[in-house]
Amino acid sequence: MSETYAGKALDFLKRYNLQEGDTIEIIKNGLRIRGIIMPSYSSTDDILVLKLDNGYNIGITVDSINEIRVLQKGRKKDEGRKEEKKEIEKESEVTIISTGGTIVSKIEYDTGAVRPALTTEEILEFMPEINEIAKINATILFSILSENMKPEYWVKIANEVKIRLDKGAKGIVIAHGTDTMTYTASALAFSLKSLTGPVVLVGSQRSSDRPSSDAPINLFTAVLVAKNAPFAEVVVNMHGESSDTYTLVHRGVKVRKMHTSRRDAFQTINDLPLAKVYYRERKLEMLREDYLKKSETNEVDPKFEPSVFLLKYYPGLSPDIVDYLVSKGIKGIIIEGTGLGHTSSDFYEAFRRATKDGVFVGMTSQCLFGRVNMNVYTTGRLLQDAGVVPLEDMLPETALVKLMWVLAHEKDLDKVKELMLTNFVGEINPIHIPEMYPRWYHDRIRLQ
Amino acid sequence: MSETYAGKALDFLKRYNLQEGDTIEIIKNGLRIRGIIMPSYSSTDDILVLKLDNGYNIGITVDSINEIRVLQKGRKKDEGRKEEKKEIEKESEVTIISTGGTIVSKIEYDTGAVRPALTTEEILEFMPEINEIAKINATILFSILSENMKPEYWVKIANEVKIRLDKGAKGIVIAHGTDTMTYTASALAFSLKSLTGPVVLVGSQRSSDRPSSDAPINLFTAVLVAKNAPFAEVVVNMHGESSDTYTLVHRGVKVRKMHTSRRDAFQTINDLPLAKVYYRERKLEMLREDYLKKSETNEVDPKFEPSVFLLKYYPGLSPDIVDYLVSKGIKGIIIEGTGLGHTSSDFYEAFRRATKDGVFVGMTSQCLFGRVNMNVYTTGRLLQDAGVVPLEDMLPETALVKLMWVLAHEKDLDKVKELMLTNFVGEINPIHIPEMYPRWYHDRIRLQ
Repeated sequence: MSETYAGKALDFLKRYNLQEGDTIEIIKNGLRIRGIIMPSYSSTDDILVLKLDNGYNIGITVDSINEIRVLQKGRKKDEGRKEEKKEIEKESEVTIISTGGTIVSKIEYDTGAVRPALTTEEILEFMPEINEIAKINATILFSILSENMKPEYWVKIANEVKIRLDKGAKGIVIAHGTDTMTYTASALAFSLKSLTGPVVLVGSQRSSDRPSSDAPINLFTAVLVAKNAPFAEVVVNMHGESSDTYTLVHRGVKVRKMHTSRRDAFQTINDLPLAKVYYRERKLEMLREDYLKKSETNEVDPKFEPSVFLLKYYPGLSPDIVDYLVSKGIKGIIIEGTGLGHTSSDFYEAFRRATKDGVFVGMTSQCLFGRVNMNVYTTGRLLQDAGVVPLEDMLPETALVKLMWVLAHEKDLDKVKELMLTNFVGEINPIHIPEMYPRWYHDRIRLQ
Repeated sequence: MSETYAGKALDFLKRYNLQEGDTIEIIKNGLRIRGIIMPSYSSTDDILVLKLDNGYNIGITVDSINEIRVLQKGRKKDEGRKEEKKEIEKESEVTIISTGGTIVSKIEYDTGAVRPALTTEEILEFMPEINEIAKINATILFSILSENMKPEYWVKIANEVKIRLDKGAKGIVIAHGTDTMTYTASALAFSLKSLTGPVVLVGSQRSSDRPSSDAPINLFTAVLVAKNAPFAEVVVNMHGESSDTYTLVHRGVKVRKMHTSRRDAFQTINDLPLAKVYYRERKLEMLREDYLKKSETNEVDPKFEPSVFLLKYYPGLSPDIVDYLVSKGIKGIIIEGTGLGHTSSDFYEAFRRATKDGVFVGMTSQCLFGRVNMNVYTTGRLLQDAGVVPLEDMLPETALVKLMWVLAHEKDLDKVKELMLTNFVGEINPIHIPEMYPRWYHDRIRLQ
């Protein structure tokens, strides 16, 4: 029953006849703490892990516990599981496809490093209340860190999504590492042209056995979105601010990981989020009505030409790199230019040679916010004359994935250009409003 | 006197014996407008350009003017200029070094494109009130669009800064295009190790002959900072918000152009601005005390190794690019990795080969906000084992310029690593606080 516990903590559980899943209340240093006993992955054997009402897991040294009271016995782990499983397979409303990442990771306490290892069943143990909002069915497609994600995996995920939606799931949750989640979101968005329900990517910035993990809340709200959302889009659902009030549902082609470690790292760029999900209230609030509607059928078209390159321009960059890429048979280049979409004039001829060779060259901006406009300055005009195509307000990463997808379907440069400028799933936002630019802090602060 | 005017507008000026520089008040459709007559670069010959008290230039069709009153005659353009010029040379407090860019640009009305063309004298005509805050002296170093900026130009600017400060200027203003301004700011910050006064880069997002140009206010406040600021750092002074209330003074190594077109495009990342300048009040408000102090002498050390590469990682990128760069004699690579500083595991061996060949490989994050941490996940540890150096919270662009500078001074890989991790001018910020992450808009908006 308590196989993850050993030593002092296990003795403690035995003494009070406790097991994982029991809801208890303890008093520690005069503080009353109420929570559910969770599996432990602590390196020391005197820690009891409790899941609090706010979704957090905390570790408590058993010696520090002054009083304990059992509020509710959890159901025994395997009791009735087989029958339940059958029922889930038949009637599941949401399928969770697990691909790896921190959300399904545990810490290797020997090294302190994190590896993707938890099974989907273990995730569900962390979040038993998911069963209260949807009948779920979980599957492990693969288990990789998202920095190792590749276009061929995007194909597998897209196909699995179609299979599961065709089988009757109302929506899909994809557990994914955060590092490359937005690239996968774009890839799925372009691949899944028509959907019967939402496809919700979810991850966590802190692993599920850490006290401040965002995994439980992100997963719980993702299931809620997959089951209840009115749209049929590929979205990312992650913490919206640094506390646990709400998660945000971002359009997959307009979201970017903007912080290395904060739980609210994912933010919509050049657009507004689709929805907000209040965790405690279990409430999905739509922020917009201009979402993609549900279709009768699921269409999947996941093909990607991996021979593309994302080139970030900087002063001192030599145009030789363009000729090298063309000589190696590259099919397309997305430039992250400066400002409105520029490179130095040294690049004109290299781009002209590339586009004459049939290589698509598209321009985005390293500013990230705003829209490229290559008609304002002479540089932009000359770059266009050399065959470079301005890609509106698309994020560089979205443009790159879109180009991989477009080039797998079309070789003719004019048609590639036309497709790159076709707004398939909201990757181009024609209207920008001031609220789409975040607000920086500009005041005085007393630093230590 | 009014050589930029022709046709109807010139007739109008002649009729009322007016010239550029005169302060007038007109009545148009019952509206009273007060301003100074500015040079015109309008394509039509019936527009009178007035500079308003708020710093804006507006164009008024002369036919629409119902009444006109001369409030103050401007001084004739060349009157007393020679004597004045001599005096300026001797006693100037601030030197404006012009390198080109939108701030010194005018529109080619034939094509609608913008070219850097205005002389520094013409800029000063736009902003006569600069003379009220500092005696200035202006010099055109070169006139290029900043997308064409190169490391060799950084050397010229750095040397010119030292010459001008040594000659007695209290501070320097550098007029620069916005596209690569932050790269130049970093280059100057590493080159100018000790300074007797502030070095203020300034640009504009909209050219000075457009009505909503940020050029006058940015230039005016830049001169104010150069003359009055207590610090001796390389900074960027640009609009702080979308109205004209204040500009922000950003540390040159911690600022990024975050929007293609907004006037408040420049924002500090992973740090807080140094100061705020209120344009109307002519007031410099320091936001921090931890700035670099003024030295007794100016030391300049502008050497850059241009053979470095900024490699942005994405799913599907082949490690072949690393071997190609090494084969071409690259000296250093800055990676823009995912999340905490990752690439796919396919890159380990290529990085190992590169670092064994003496190539420095440093890691930054494409998230931009936050700090790389390559001790959390196995991937980060294995990348470090392959020789990749985590570069703290440095911006990718700053790390790139710093590496160019470090490699021009040191070849030994261990010493390069040590220098890259030495915090020379605040490019590494050891303490992050929540206010350093901007706030995104997460609420409902009624879109058209």
